[in-house]
Amino acid sequence: MSEWIYFFDLWGTAVFALTGALAAGHHRMDPFGVLVLAGVTAVGGGSIRDALLGTTPVFWLQDPTYILIVLATVIATIIFNRTSPNAPWYVLPIADALGLALFTIIGTEKALSLGLSSISAVIMGVLTGVGGGIIRDVLCRQVPMVLRTEIYATASIVGGIAYCICLSTALDHFTSMCIAMLSAFGIRLAAIKWHLSLPAFDLKR
Amino acid sequence: MSEWIYFFDLWGTAVFALTGALAAGHHRMDPFGVLVLAGVTAVGGGSIRDALLGTTPVFWLQDPTYILIVLATVIATIIFNRTSPNAPWYVLPIADALGLALFTIIGTEKALSLGLSSISAVIMGVLTGVGGGIIRDVLCRQVPMVLRTEIYATASIVGGIAYCICLSTALDHFTSMCIAMLSAFGIRLAAIKWHLSLPAFDLKR
Amino acid sequence: MSEWIYFFDLWGTAVFALTGALAAGHHRMDPFGVLVLAGVTAVGGGSIRDALLGTTPVFWLQDPTYILIVLATVIATIIFNRTSPNAPWYVLPIADALGLALFTIIGTEKALSLGLSSISAVIMGVLTGVGGGIIRDVLCRQVPMVLRTEIYATASIVGGIAYCICLSTALDHFTSMCIAMLSAFGIRLAAIKWHLSLPAFDLKR
Repeated sequence: MSEWIYFFDLWGTAVFALTGALAAGHHRMDPFGVLVLAGVTAVGGGSIRDALLGTTPVFWLQDPTYILIVLATVIATIIFNRTSPNAPWYVLPIADALGLALFTIIGTEKALSLGLSSISAVIMGVLTGVGGGIIRDVLCRQVPMVLRTEIYATASIVGGIAYCICLSTALDHFTSMCIAMLSAFGIRLAAIKWHLSLPAFDLKR
Repeated sequence: MSEWIYFFDLWGTAVFALTGALAAGHHRMDPFGVLVLAGVTAVGGGSIRDALLGTTPVFWLQDPTYILIVLATVIATIIFNRTSPNAPWYVLPIADALGLALFTIIGTEKALSLGLSSISAVIMGVLTGVGGGIIRDVLCRQVPMVLRTEIYATASIVGGIAYCICLSTALDHFTSMCIAMLSAFGIRLAAIKWHLSLPAFDLKR
Repeated sequence: MSEWIYFFDLWGTAVFALTGALAAGHHRMDPFGVLVLAGVTAVGGGSIRDALLGTTPVFWLQDPTYILIVLATVIATIIFNRTSPNAPWYVLPIADALGLALFTIIGTEKALSLGLSSISAVIMGVLTGVGGGIIRDVLCRQVPMVLRTEIYATASIVGGIAYCICLSTALDHFTSMCIAMLSAFGIRLAAIKWHLSLPAFDLKR
């Protein structure tokens, strides 16, 4: 992978670790609990992806940078929580949307590079993007947010499909990635701004 | 695997996807949540099995038919939920019992074909049969039904053991599968009809 | 692995299976539920470790002794629960602390033997030590105890780090293992005796 993808991957890791650390704070966990929640949110989706693909040892075991990023994020979160003024409310969702878009494309690309079909690759992309958040919510004993609320996974699905379509045309990898990432990112931002949701599936009584 | 096993495997996938989609409906999830719950119920047990066995990429990554079945089941469930009259109550449990029996034998057979011991193979069969339902219940924030209620996993265990015993005699694969499947299916049907349960393990206070 | 490590590994398996069986009793599960909870508590952490490392089929599939230990523990728990006088309260936590220390070192050692970095190895050790208990608590619908309460995982982390440090000096494997195990065991015992906790991470409102 080229260097800038790697950089964005680490960025996504830090953002997802932050959302996990904040969730741990809401449940008054001890520092180890904060670390675990930050860690599973950041690398949980990619770990399941690698275990299902068989690309083991999973990515963060081969490159400890990811773990160091999680560690640094947790320490920074605990320190800044007490000392800094609150960031504007929209900083976290926007950073999270960027992480979602990046992780989706990275997961999709990894599956495609192993020669899997497009449909499998899109699922691996979504798993990479939303898997960590699902484990985080399960450990906090909540029905995973992503299964119920605003368009989130849908943005990931669209991004993965867009990437596969772009690749099947004459577009090169770089352009395809940018288009796919922007579509996932844009859809998620629009969902945040206008509170877009898909209609819930309601059983006939 | 011979063709009719494959056919039954897809049948079990559709049935389990249906139970997952209905559970999602009970929790008013959005369409993506319905897809995820249907998917993990249908292929979750087999995915864990393949990850533990190391037969990766897991089965549905190598054959997207499983995913298409899940997709078709979800779409059909959402459409028919609004338009069709209710099916008789016993249709779903009977179909589910058949899925349980089929998945159990398929999981047991896969472990045996890798040269694992009978005891490991029976566990892999049970995992294939009940694993998806356990993940479904955890995501819906319930203590997994299979751990508490009517004889369900027990039917799966008996089926797996029956298969190993039949194979150790002079019986061929086909006959062994039929006997094992019928015993798991029969025990589960009997448990449904007469509400059979094992006694709960109650701690002395 | 030398024979006495293997013996201690089986010992840890029995102790963790016991804690799982007791948790199942508190939730009035049926015998299969007791088996599943005992099993995931005992071998769940090691299974995730092996799936992430790619050392598949996972350890208990290759050596059914672990499963037989779980089975024997469950049967013994159900029988003795009704017939025996209560053991002193401190027996279970001490046995559990020993299991935690043993599993931690075994997991750390396994990752190191695959050539992974120390930081990855420590995480694999912690995962082996606390992973099973986390799955047990999730299946019982509780926020995992280990994320919230007394110094537990911290003991495991210290043990893993101690092991890596000892190995990097001139100490042999055997001495390193003993030192690391004693530090994890000692910290956990001290936490039990004096109810030591790390301060919770509390979000600023």
